Amino acid sequence: MDRRSFLKTSALGGTAAAATTLAAPAIAQNSPRTLTMVTTWGRGLAGVHDSAQRVADSITAMSDGSLNVEVKAAGELVGAFEVFDAVTAGQADMYHGADYYFVGQHPAYAFFTAVPFGMTAQELVNWYYFDGGMQLHDELGEIFGLKSFLAGNTGAQAGGWYRKEVTGPEDFNGLKFRMPGLGGEALGKMGASVQNLPGAEVYQALASGAIDGTEWIGPWADEKAGFQEITKFYYAAGFHEPGAGLSLATNREVFDSLTPAQQKIIEVAAGDTHQWNLAQFLSNNGAALQRLQAGGVKVLEFPDSVWDAMGKASAETLGQYMDDDLYAKIHDSAMASMKSSSGWLTQAEGAYRAQRDRVLG
Amino acid sequence: MDRRSFLKTSALGGTAAAATTLAAPAIAQNSPRTLTMVTTWGRGLAGVHDSAQRVADSITAMSDGSLNVEVKAAGELVGAFEVFDAVTAGQADMYHGADYYFVGQHPAYAFFTAVPFGMTAQELVNWYYFDGGMQLHDELGEIFGLKSFLAGNTGAQAGGWYRKEVTGPEDFNGLKFRMPGLGGEALGKMGASVQNLPGAEVYQALASGAIDGTEWIGPWADEKAGFQEITKFYYAAGFHEPGAGLSLATNREVFDSLTPAQQKIIEVAAGDTHQWNLAQFLSNNGAALQRLQAGGVKVLEFPDSVWDAMGKASAETLGQYMDDDLYAKIHDSAMASMKSSSGWLTQAEGAYRAQRDRVLG
Repeated sequence: MDRRSFLKTSALGGTAAAATTLAAPAIAQNSPRTLTMVTTWGRGLAGVHDSAQRVADSITAMSDGSLNVEVKAAGELVGAFEVFDAVTAGQADMYHGADYYFVGQHPAYAFFTAVPFGMTAQELVNWYYFDGGMQLHDELGEIFGLKSFLAGNTGAQAGGWYRKEVTGPEDFNGLKFRMPGLGGEALGKMGASVQNLPGAEVYQALASGAIDGTEWIGPWADEKAGFQEITKFYYAAGFHEPGAGLSLATNREVFDSLTPAQQKIIEVAAGDTHQWNLAQFLSNNGAALQRLQAGGVKVLEFPDSVWDAMGKASAETLGQYMDDDLYAKIHDSAMASMKSSSGWLTQAEGAYRAQRDRVLG
Repeated sequence: MDRRSFLKTSALGGTAAAATTLAAPAIAQNSPRTLTMVTTWGRGLAGVHDSAQRVADSITAMSDGSLNVEVKAAGELVGAFEVFDAVTAGQADMYHGADYYFVGQHPAYAFFTAVPFGMTAQELVNWYYFDGGMQLHDELGEIFGLKSFLAGNTGAQAGGWYRKEVTGPEDFNGLKFRMPGLGGEALGKMGASVQNLPGAEVYQALASGAIDGTEWIGPWADEKAGFQEITKFYYAAGFHEPGAGLSLATNREVFDSLTPAQQKIIEVAAGDTHQWNLAQFLSNNGAALQRLQAGGVKVLEFPDSVWDAMGKASAETLGQYMDDDLYAKIHDSAMASMKSSSGWLTQAEGAYRAQRDRVLG
């Protein structure tokens, strides 16, 4: 994914709706109340906008008219990357977005989306609900006046499209590759010339040879972007976003002004949407991968030597922020949970899936 | 898992609460209404009772007093395996349980829990929400007057405990092994003498040599049962329940009498609980596996020849019911979805996890 691939307009702070008036819970309980949700997604963007819309619609429907969540896509009230500040300031009531866009506010927000060589989607929810992740999300949120919940997930993002097959880590020396975020930072440590092109320019850049490769999201979105028309070398497994979580963050004062029932509705709607959205991406990715392969795309895996280099570069990248106490606490918590829960997943489900694929062919 | 491992008492039909009086939606909307949830779980049974309690509590909390879900564990109103008939008959409003206990009512119910060589937990939700699974659950439910949703998952169940290492499929000839359900049926086709012992007797049977091995649930539950005190040979990956879904089923007339908001509350609470419960099992399984290994348990994988035999026996078992049209329709839908969504999961997330485990050690 990429910050710049979404609609970005200047903040419309001056014309924005006033912050929601806070009513006492007893009064709010039976009063229809509109909550404005801003998002980091262009309206209609497959999968990601869908999850914002679903969580909004679930909240509205379950509250039986006491809450009405209005989704404002990127640019409709504020720009994609103004949503964090808009909700913190009370200009909007909630945002739906990928929290790693807000590493400028705090680098530990990366862990609530994805970090290179970090957690898969399932490991993320294991951590979030049972190994302290949600409490740490709250601790981060206290700094900024936010109450956040996981509310969407793209699943593992693809390793990406390359114009030539990758034979070893030396192939990354000078490779012009598009990859945003901490993953891109790690790729830079491997010698790549990392590009951050706006989404709309990636296809043309790859076609013209201005870049040698690009990651995007996964088969569903990648097929829509059309990269298979340019190159047939597709690396399925990537190191950079192994399960990108999306968050629903509510202004803390607004959240605290809601009734317990309304607060629970937001929490449960978010959890349900996380699961639904992950299934949406995975179902669509599976079908798209079959189409891509039928169309001649070669689905490849990086050699071990490349994974070794990616692992080293990722550890260096994640280590850069460890002098921040809260970052270090969140990093260590996430890594400990991942280590604890991954063994069973690999040895039980992972081994089962490999055997089933082998036996059923 | 095992039907008999849960509290089972005779049905208390005569003393049960009368079926809930059906109120028109407009009236029901603001009236506190108690919904009785019966379950297939003994009160307090880790993980499975937890998911029943969570979905009940979520519904109650979100409805802000309009609904009050009372959980009756197995034996408290009706016995574990009477819950299906109790809800169909209107004696209780809803049940939480594993739908494969009700293959006697219809064999296709197995697909909404788990079938041998079938879907993992993630593949199950992919199918359920995006490839027609929920609609087929509805179609089954129409026969019995039920509206069902997935509302819990144990994740992949362990291959189980063996007194000797398994070297090939011939080791199953005459092997006295405890495994219930369609998996046990398949194991029988491999020559095993399949035993269905009540849960409370399994430990003693394994310790005395009355059985040569047993499956149970996964490291969290298996450790509590204490099998590691008897043998150290533990097969992590199993073929029989690769992701056991749990269901919340509401009497259809009761469901239809609820307001749209209340119906949405039940649906969303179930989805959220499915994800939460799967994370609960996986987080606890990961930690328990580490403890078991630290205690000297050898975590093993069946040889390919055994997986081949398990695959063949599973296909034969699943094929036995194909003369039922709805079973065949559900079988074919589930298998097509699994085939479609599994490729991406294996090649992207599976390959990533294997590489990460290798690189991080």
